[in-house]
Order: sequence, then structure tokens, then C-alpha cells
Amino acid sequence: MKRTPKSELRDVLARNLRLFRAERGWSQERLAHEAGLNRTYLSAVERSEQNISLDNIAKLAVAMKVSASELLKD
Amino acid sequence: MKRTPKSELRDVLARNLRLFRAERGWSQERLAHEAGLNRTYLSAVERSEQNISLDNIAKLAVAMKVSASELLKD
Repeated sequence: MKRTPKSELRDVLARNLRLFRAERGWSQERLAHEAGLNRTYLSAVERSEQNISLDNIAKLAVAMKVSASELLKD
Repeated sequence: MKRTPKSELRDVLARNLRLFRAERGWSQERLAHEAGLNRTYLSAVERSEQNISLDNIAKLAVAMKVSASELLKD
């Protein structure tokens, strides 16, 4: 069965989320709470396993006071 | 019934898609084809009506040879 390869962009976002979170000393639970997302979902996003939607990217950006553009910067 | 407001980020992406498309002289149909997306779906994204996924943002960025970060730049 042909699998769609996970986009490299997922890895970029995952890395940036972990980085920005670390800068703030925030746990996944804290970020999930601030963004109004489920912690298990956020964990999957940070492992590049979840294809996140634009609206949820916006929530993460608002929670960490960064631009969505920065979250996707390689 | 409470509605989730459409994120401003949808508008940013929609504007950039139209802009980059115009720069290339591409129709929606052409971009949809190049990115392997449905034209009706792309049309809804450009009207901020569709909550696009990260993997599909990646496809649009690759098709237009821009970074995903640029696509979300305000």
C-alpha cells in the first residue's frame, strides 16, 4: 500500500513548537491548555504524526505570541 | 449556537495564495492541478471558508516554489 509521506513541514513545525515551548519553560500540557487544544493531540503534532489544521496552528501561535509564519520557518 | 470565528490566519493565507498565483499568471485550476488538490477545495481556501491542513499547505508551497512560512506571512 502506498503511503503518503509525512511532509517535511510537519517536522519544521514540530521542531519550532518544541523550541518555543522550551524558551518559555512550558510543558506540552501547559501549551495545550493555553491554546485550548488536547494534550495528546499536541503531543502527536510534536512527533509529526498529526496533520494539524490552520486554525489550530493559529491557536498555538496566539498562545505563544509568535506569528504562524515563524512557527513554519525552517 | 456559538460559532468558532474563522481565524484571521485563513485570510492571510487566502490573500497570499491569490497574490502568488497572480504573480505567476496561474488560474485556481492551474494551481490546484500543480498542487494535486481539488479546485473547489482551493477555491474555498481562497475564500477563507476551508480550514486547510498543514500537509496541503506544504503542497501549495511546493507547487509555487515558495516557503510555507511565506504563505502565512502577514
